Amino acid sequence: MLKPLGDRVVLEAQEEEEKTVGGIVLASNAQEKPTTAKVVAVGEGRVLDNGEKLAPSVKKDDLVLFDKYSGTEVEYQGDKFLVVHEKDIVAIVD
Amino acid sequence: MLKPLGDRVVLEAQEEEEKTVGGIVLASNAQEKPTTAKVVAVGEGRVLDNGEKLAPSVKKDDLVLFDKYSGTEVEYQGDKFLVVHEKDIVAIVD
Amino acid sequence: MLKPLGDRVVLEAQEEEEKTVGGIVLASNAQEKPTTAKVVAVGEGRVLDNGEKLAPSVKKDDLVLFDKYSGTEVEYQGDKFLVVHEKDIVAIVD
Amino acid sequence: MLKPLGDRVVLEAQEEEEKTVGGIVLASNAQEKPTTAKVVAVGEGRVLDNGEKLAPSVKKDDLVLFDKYSGTEVEYQGDKFLVVHEKDIVAIVD
Amino acid sequence: MLKPLGDRVVLEAQEEEEKTVGGIVLASNAQEKPTTAKVVAVGEGRVLDNGEKLAPSVKKDDLVLFDKYSGTEVEYQGDKFLVVHEKDIVAIVD
Amino acid sequence: MLKPLGDRVVLEAQEEEEKTVGGIVLASNAQEKPTTAKVVAVGEGRVLDNGEKLAPSVKKDDLVLFDKYSGTEVEYQGDKFLVVHEKDIVAIVD
Amino acid sequence: MLKPLGDRVVLEAQEEEEKTVGGIVLASNAQEKPTTAKVVAVGEGRVLDNGEKLAPSVKKDDLVLFDKYSGTEVEYQGDKFLVVHEKDIVAIVD
Repeated sequence: MLKPLGDRVVLEAQEEEEKTVGGIVLASNAQEKPTTAKVVAVGEGRVLDNGEKLAPSVKKDDLVLFDKYSGTEVEYQGDKFLVVHEKDIVAIVD
Repeated sequence: MLKPLGDRVVLEAQEEEEKTVGGIVLASNAQEKPTTAKVVAVGEGRVLDNGEKLAPSVKKDDLVLFDKYSGTEVEYQGDKFLVVHEKDIVAIVD
Repeated sequence: MLKPLGDRVVLEAQEEEEKTVGGIVLASNAQEKPTTAKVVAVGEGRVLDNGEKLAPSVKKDDLVLFDKYSGTEVEYQGDKFLVVHEKDIVAIVD
Repeated sequence: MLKPLGDRVVLEAQEEEEKTVGGIVLASNAQEKPTTAKVVAVGEGRVLDNGEKLAPSVKKDDLVLFDKYSGTEVEYQGDKFLVVHEKDIVAIVD
Repeated sequence: MLKPLGDRVVLEAQEEEEKTVGGIVLASNAQEKPTTAKVVAVGEGRVLDNGEKLAPSVKKDDLVLFDKYSGTEVEYQGDKFLVVHEKDIVAIVD
Repeated sequence: MLKPLGDRVVLEAQEEEEKTVGGIVLASNAQEKPTTAKVVAVGEGRVLDNGEKLAPSVKKDDLVLFDKYSGTEVEYQGDKFLVVHEKDIVAIVD
Repeated sequence: MLKPLGDRVVLEAQEEEEKTVGGIVLASNAQEKPTTAKVVAVGEGRVLDNGEKLAPSVKKDDLVLFDKYSGTEVEYQGDKFLVVHEKDIVAIVD
């Protein structure tokens, strides 16, 4: 298992179709390109100046939009994952 | 539904006429180009150093001026949205 | 009405004569060029690290000097306004 | 009257002779060029993180050395003034 | 023995095969290249603004993923080690 | 008299011989070039975030090593002085 | 005697052989080149935001690894010393 440190989140990136009508797709002329992924694991959260840990805003199995060029790609037991900082997650798709 | 994280705000960008007399338009020689939009969803707010969340200054359905080049464009169920940080919102138009 | 957010201030920029003796004019060789304006609306103020809002130092109808190249120009109901951050206001002219 | 905001100080810049023996002059090979001025008005002081205002270290009529290239030049009722931040004042000349 | 200072961690870097199916390997097109290592020693942790030390999130013998280009290589008694800051450790592999 | 503001220190720079055996000289291949000076006056000290002033670590008549390229040169009543920030003082020579 | 200010540490740099098997040497392809030295004197420590001094993590006579390109070289009574900030010390060699 991958246990991300601090405010990191492990995502299972999802391949997405180029242009879909009912669903979330990147506008073709977007400046930053967010993309969707499922949350696989979350760290304990960012440490505040007073030493407390700030609970992450996302949880396992959330579907999220994140900035495409953020994070670090890893492979674990044959699957590809992406480790991003929570601040790179734009929104949860409910 | 899109649930923006932290101090993010989901906006429904509004196409605007090039030059209108009664209404808010961009001065043609503006250095930064603010534009108008309706607030669709707001995050829980920025986390302060002491761990408290600062309630956002805008709410759903507010009409706002924001910096044109800020934010991330997304499409959700066929509609275009823009996700910006609250600090990129210049003013509320009452 | 325009309600500026945070530490922003809405100004009504004033055209100024090139060189006046009794009044406030820019010295011709000034490095930064401040200019005068009337305060039209003020935000609730900057949020401090402890979450308190710092009341703005200027109020409606104050005549102020501000850095010329700061701020965002907007037009509202046919009038031009400038939205600046309070820190870009140099002095109040009493 | 000019009421500087925050940690700003209004100075009446003094023309100085190129090289004087009894007095304060710039060494000809100085990297930064401080120059002398009389304090005309002081702001309420810098706002600390906890919201308190830090009383300025200079007062009206102090003669000060300041960094020559700092500040904003203004003219008010025919006189030239310089508005600087307190941190750009190097020393008080007693 | 090497006693790392502050938030530093001493790692025993592990040579890794170029491409493995069951295990953790770098995706060939990763932007940042994390790599695996065993924790050999940890410092007392980062000092917070209030003077407290934040206990490290990793401990001796943990297997970790870290950013490949971070840290300082040292040799001690014939073995190679890498000293990194805790923030450069991406995840613990359980 | 020169009263330096904040964390500033007024130094009386000392001309130094190029290379001395018993004494403090710059190593010829030093990256930064510290040099020696006598403390002439000290400010009230740096203001901390909580508003308290941090008493300076040097006092009048201390002999100090400081970074050669730091500070502002001034002349006062025919003598040359250097005003530096306390952080640019490397060590006291006892 | 040299009394370093703040978080500074005076080191007696040690000449090191190019490549040794039993001992601490720089890996030939290290990005940053740490090197070993003996601690000669330590300052009172870094001042925290609340005004407290953080006791240094190293003490006189410790053997330390430090970043080679950090610090300021000085000569005192014929000996060469290096003054570094504590943060540039990588590890203590026990």
